Amino acid sequence: MTYCVGLRLDAGLVLLSDTRTNAGIDNVSVYRKMFTFEVPGERAMVLMTAGNLSVTQTVLAKIRHRMANTEASASESILRAESMLEVAEIFGRTLHQVSLDINSKMKAMEQQASASMLLAGQRRGGQPRLFLIYQQGNFIEATDDTPYLQIGEHKYGKPILDRVVTPATSLEDGRKAALLSMDSTLRSNLSVGMPLDLAIIPTNEFRIATHQRIEAGDPTFSQMSEAWSQTLRDGFANMP
Amino acid sequence: MTYCVGLRLDAGLVLLSDTRTNAGIDNVSVYRKMFTFEVPGERAMVLMTAGNLSVTQTVLAKIRHRMANTEASASESILRAESMLEVAEIFGRTLHQVSLDINSKMKAMEQQASASMLLAGQRRGGQPRLFLIYQQGNFIEATDDTPYLQIGEHKYGKPILDRVVTPATSLEDGRKAALLSMDSTLRSNLSVGMPLDLAIIPTNEFRIATHQRIEAGDPTFSQMSEAWSQTLRDGFANMP
Repeated sequence: MTYCVGLRLDAGLVLLSDTRTNAGIDNVSVYRKMFTFEVPGERAMVLMTAGNLSVTQTVLAKIRHRMANTEASASESILRAESMLEVAEIFGRTLHQVSLDINSKMKAMEQQASASMLLAGQRRGGQPRLFLIYQQGNFIEATDDTPYLQIGEHKYGKPILDRVVTPATSLEDGRKAALLSMDSTLRSNLSVGMPLDLAIIPTNEFRIATHQRIEAGDPTFSQMSEAWSQTLRDGFANMP
Repeated sequence: MTYCVGLRLDAGLVLLSDTRTNAGIDNVSVYRKMFTFEVPGERAMVLMTAGNLSVTQTVLAKIRHRMANTEASASESILRAESMLEVAEIFGRTLHQVSLDINSKMKAMEQQASASMLLAGQRRGGQPRLFLIYQQGNFIEATDDTPYLQIGEHKYGKPILDRVVTPATSLEDGRKAALLSMDSTLRSNLSVGMPLDLAIIPTNEFRIATHQRIEAGDPTFSQMSEAWSQTLRDGFANMP
């Protein structure tokens, strides 16, 4: 399983993912699920992936192959695409094609592979945008009404987001909310696990200002997790 | 959808269910999902149901038919069964048979009906017990390590239970925890809805001491819900 969450705040984009991957309950590994793409001062983008690893790795390999091609067109390379919408279309198209290809083989064995992605970023001349891209290649976008999107195990971490995140939330509070949302998920679902990857893209800076790996036992994260537990227990004890 | 939760505390059993039933998103009704069975001073039992209404209603009709039969044996009537384990076996067997019967018809139309149940109670001479009964007729039981069980939409309401419920929790705190767990679920999943049914069976009293319907707009519940939101928001704001 996986948990990835993205916030689209007025102040910028906050992205957080876990790294646990499993093939069956007895085969658990650490794989990066967050990938950054940056032309500093011009565009900054973060992709987060959930689902079948063979699908998401193949999509990334194809995307990178086209990024490296100096003759790729704007509709082929995410570094040349003229808007975040066009970047979302490139990822959507690639995800759709790879899924179709892999599933045509899986179906013969009565299996199937699914995957989804969160794409966040801003290009000079455009707004910060956050998309959830489905396996079929279509996507939805975060709005002021629903300023966050999640993929993977989304339920445990949703209540805190619903209560505290609005477009006006600061980047610091957004980071805190994303980490607490992850903390609730880590506690309730063993198939979501440390370390975590965190990235922040402040609005109109066109760069990834924060890109941090948070390891198991990280003192700041542990302290925050413990403080939140204490807040909940105290709040519960003091309820009328 | 449905959310039902049961706590097996040293002080007694706390049971809470919602009442929303839907056949498709455009056909939403109120149906009771909590049923009580009592021989005051001798045994007190509460059943909560989730899943296909035709399955759970048929199971209840069969159970009641056998309860009304004055010649029913201990292995047939839940009012004569010699232990809560035997009551769980009666419900399990009936659920299994009804499921098989209904699914044999559903399969012909490539559909299926599933259901599950929480059974809580105490009989004089035995301990308070709480079971989760699966459609196949087998069941698991709450223990000191895991003193609560849930059916239906269980994820949103789990974090609060994990943090505050232990066997030593008082009945008052258990009631509060169950209501807050329901509150989180109501906020996040529209297919779980008011009114609620609450029941409490104190240990060694062999009676249902509390059996209460909490209507939409109930002032005490609304106040608790608002106080909890405020606690979470304040706690978040004051986090280091």
